[in-house]
Parts: sequence; C-alpha cells; structure tokens
Amino acid sequence: MEMKGSRIHKLEPYLGEFVYGGMDGSVTTFAVVAGSVGAGLDSSVIIILGFANLLADGFAMSVGAYLSAKTQKDNFDKHRAQAARNMETVHEVEKEEIRRIYSLKGFEGELLNKVVDLITRDKERWIDVKMKEGLQMNRPMKSPLWIGGITYISFLLIGLIPLAVFVLDYLNPIDKNLFVISSTLTAMGFFIIGWLKAVVNQTRILKGISETVSLGTIAAVVAYFVGYLLEQLLS
Amino acid sequence: MEMKGSRIHKLEPYLGEFVYGGMDGSVTTFAVVAGSVGAGLDSSVIIILGFANLLADGFAMSVGAYLSAKTQKDNFDKHRAQAARNMETVHEVEKEEIRRIYSLKGFEGELLNKVVDLITRDKERWIDVKMKEGLQMNRPMKSPLWIGGITYISFLLIGLIPLAVFVLDYLNPIDKNLFVISSTLTAMGFFIIGWLKAVVNQTRILKGISETVSLGTIAAVVAYFVGYLLEQLLS
Repeated sequence: MEMKGSRIHKLEPYLGEFVYGGMDGSVTTFAVVAGSVGAGLDSSVIIILGFANLLADGFAMSVGAYLSAKTQKDNFDKHRAQAARNMETVHEVEKEEIRRIYSLKGFEGELLNKVVDLITRDKERWIDVKMKEGLQMNRPMKSPLWIGGITYISFLLIGLIPLAVFVLDYLNPIDKNLFVISSTLTAMGFFIIGWLKAVVNQTRILKGISETVSLGTIAAVVAYFVGYLLEQLLS
Repeated sequence: MEMKGSRIHKLEPYLGEFVYGGMDGSVTTFAVVAGSVGAGLDSSVIIILGFANLLADGFAMSVGAYLSAKTQKDNFDKHRAQAARNMETVHEVEKEEIRRIYSLKGFEGELLNKVVDLITRDKERWIDVKMKEGLQMNRPMKSPLWIGGITYISFLLIGLIPLAVFVLDYLNPIDKNLFVISSTLTAMGFFIIGWLKAVVNQTRILKGISETVSLGTIAAVVAYFVGYLLEQLLS
C-alpha cells in the first residue's frame, strides 16, 4: 500500500499534462467526427482521418511538449553553470548584483552590507539567490520524458473516445445513431477532463467542468457547420 | 518609428505563443492532408475536414490557452489577497514564515531578526517576499487575452499553409502534384517556426529548425501511412 501511495504521489505533478493532452486529443478527433457528419461523409473517412490525426497530432504534441520541457531544463542548467563561472571570474560584478537585488528590497547601510556578505559567503546560497531573485528562474522539477509520455498516453486515450463507436460499428454494425453516441461519450470525457482541470488549477469544480464542456461543444458545433457549409459550397 | 519600435517590443513576449500555435495549426491540417493523400481520398475531403479541424481546433486551443492564463492570473491574485489578509489576521504566523524563509537561506541570530523586521515593516515588501520566496509564485506578466489572440492568429495563419494549394486548385485547377506543393510550403513553414522557436528558447538556430522540421516530417509520415493502411484495411 505504501508503494501505491508513493506512485500516485509521483504522478500527481503530471495531472496538468494529462488534462491538456486529453483535451487536445478529444477536440482533434471530435472535430474530424463532427466535420465529417456535418458534411455527410462516410464513416470510413472518420476512421481513416480520425486515426491519422490522432496518431500524428499525438506524436507531434507529446514530442513537442518533451522538447519544450527539455529546453527549459537545459536553459536552467546553462544559466546556473554560467552563474557559477561568473562568481569566479567577475566576482565583484556578481556581488554588486546581489547588493542591487537586496537594495531594491529596501535594505541599506550596514544591514545591506551584512546581508550581502552572508549570501556571498556560501557559493551554493549565492547561486540560488542569483537564479531565483536575479534571473527569476525556478528549477524545473518535472521530468521532460514524463511530460512527453503522459501527454502522449492522455492524447491517445481520451482522443480515442470520439472514434471508438465508429470502429465498433465497423467491426459489428450497431443499429443506432453513431454521432449521438460519440457526442455523448465525448461530452462525458470533457466532463471528467474539466473536473481534473479544476483539481489541477485549484478552482471550483463547476467552473472547470462548465468551461471544458462548453469549449468542446462550441468546437464541435464549429466543425459541424464548417463541414456542412463547405460540403454545400463544393458540391 | 518610436511607435513601431515599442509595438514590436510589446509583442515580443508572445513569440512563444506564435511558435506553438503555428506548430499545432500546421501539424493538424497537414495530418488531414497527408492522411487523405495516403488513403487516396478526394481533394474536397481535404478542404472540408482541413477547415473543420483548422477552425475547431484553433478555437479550442486559443480559448484553452486564454482560460489557462486567466486561471493562473486569478490564482496569483487570490493568493496575494489572501496573503494581505493573513498579514492582518495572523500577523505573528506570517512573520514566523518570513523568519523561516530567511533562516533556510542561512541567516541567524541578530542579523536574522533585523532582516525579518525590515521586511515586515513594509506591507508591500512583505507580501512580495511571501509570494516569491514563500509560495514560489511570480506575477504572470502576460495578458491572457493576448495569449489567446496570438495563439488563434498563428494557428489559423500557419495552419492554412498546408491547405492553401488545395483551395487554389479548386478555384482554378493547377496542373501539378498538389501534395508535393503543399509539403514544400509546409516544410518552409516548419523551417520558419523552428527558427523562431530557437529565438524564443535562446538555443542554436540549427537545433530549433532541425527539431521542428523533423517533428513535422515524422508526423506527416505517420498520418500518410495510417491513412494508407486504414484505407487498405477498410476497403
């Protein structure tokens, strides 16, 4: 049980990636569904382009998220190494920088001198103050690989929801309105994603859910009517 | 000229939104193009679903970016207001918090007392230290509306590139391989986006360009083969 608890704890910082990956995945595939239904295109087009978009967008988005997080981490390390070097080579300039930071906080005279002396006495402490208060850079705590991985899984998993019923119908025909089933399942997905979004952002649950469901609904309506109108125009 | 310079300066912080909005827009529509060509679908399907995805995804993505930025801003304001209230109601607890922060930095004894006294003497200064060093929250400087707006414009503008030649061909038939033209134009778009990404991230230009062009190419290859294979499977 201890193990399980610590695993959940480890994943918790990535709930934001799960929320945004899932949202983007379902909007992308549901746009294909709604656009195709609006234009009266065949179910096979929904399956073909739904999966093409799901896999290509999911790949691009998660690798993009990985690269962006990796760059941020590298940037932090680069600036930190540079700061460490500067402390040796331009010692006085860097000390002056700490003096400037604390002078802006309202320190002056003998107290300012003592504060600057104490901070610059320990190199690690000095670099920490320089990074956080001088460069306003906090150390990125999340793993780029996990950011990319969670985004990918969530994009595929939630993005599959709008398509699932069309695949099932192809394998074993369902005598129901597929668009209604797909829309209902997708709305339920948006509901859960909105709930989780409220948890991530520490806002009201109702706000998270209503925002996400409205956003998804409007996007679907847009896709449906764009599909409908262009079909009329082109035929 | 003064005016123009300050306008560019005002937009500069949003270059990141332009890069990521443009990347997502072109990957989304190019996935429709590549998937459709791979599956041998009609050009009208590319136009219909390309625009359905462009407009629906662009809407969802930019409003999503706006809402996320707005929530962060609101969260900051909420915590700042709470901190201001706490300074009145649980004055000693909050003062102890500042003492803890500076004690962790290595301050002690008389110097620690003096530092805590100076910081807690001015309410604005006190709240600033609490937010930045206690809660690790920096004030969001970017406007949520601009974040959403720039994302939207970039998504539509760059996302239009893969579709443009199919629209032109519909209006006035071009006797060329449309997929080759679309791919070339899209690759040029990825090239520029990669360049701008390197500027935003302060990394090497070649790294930004090669990452972005490879990412887009792999996504397009995935979409093409998913389209091709599913078409074989379904027909």
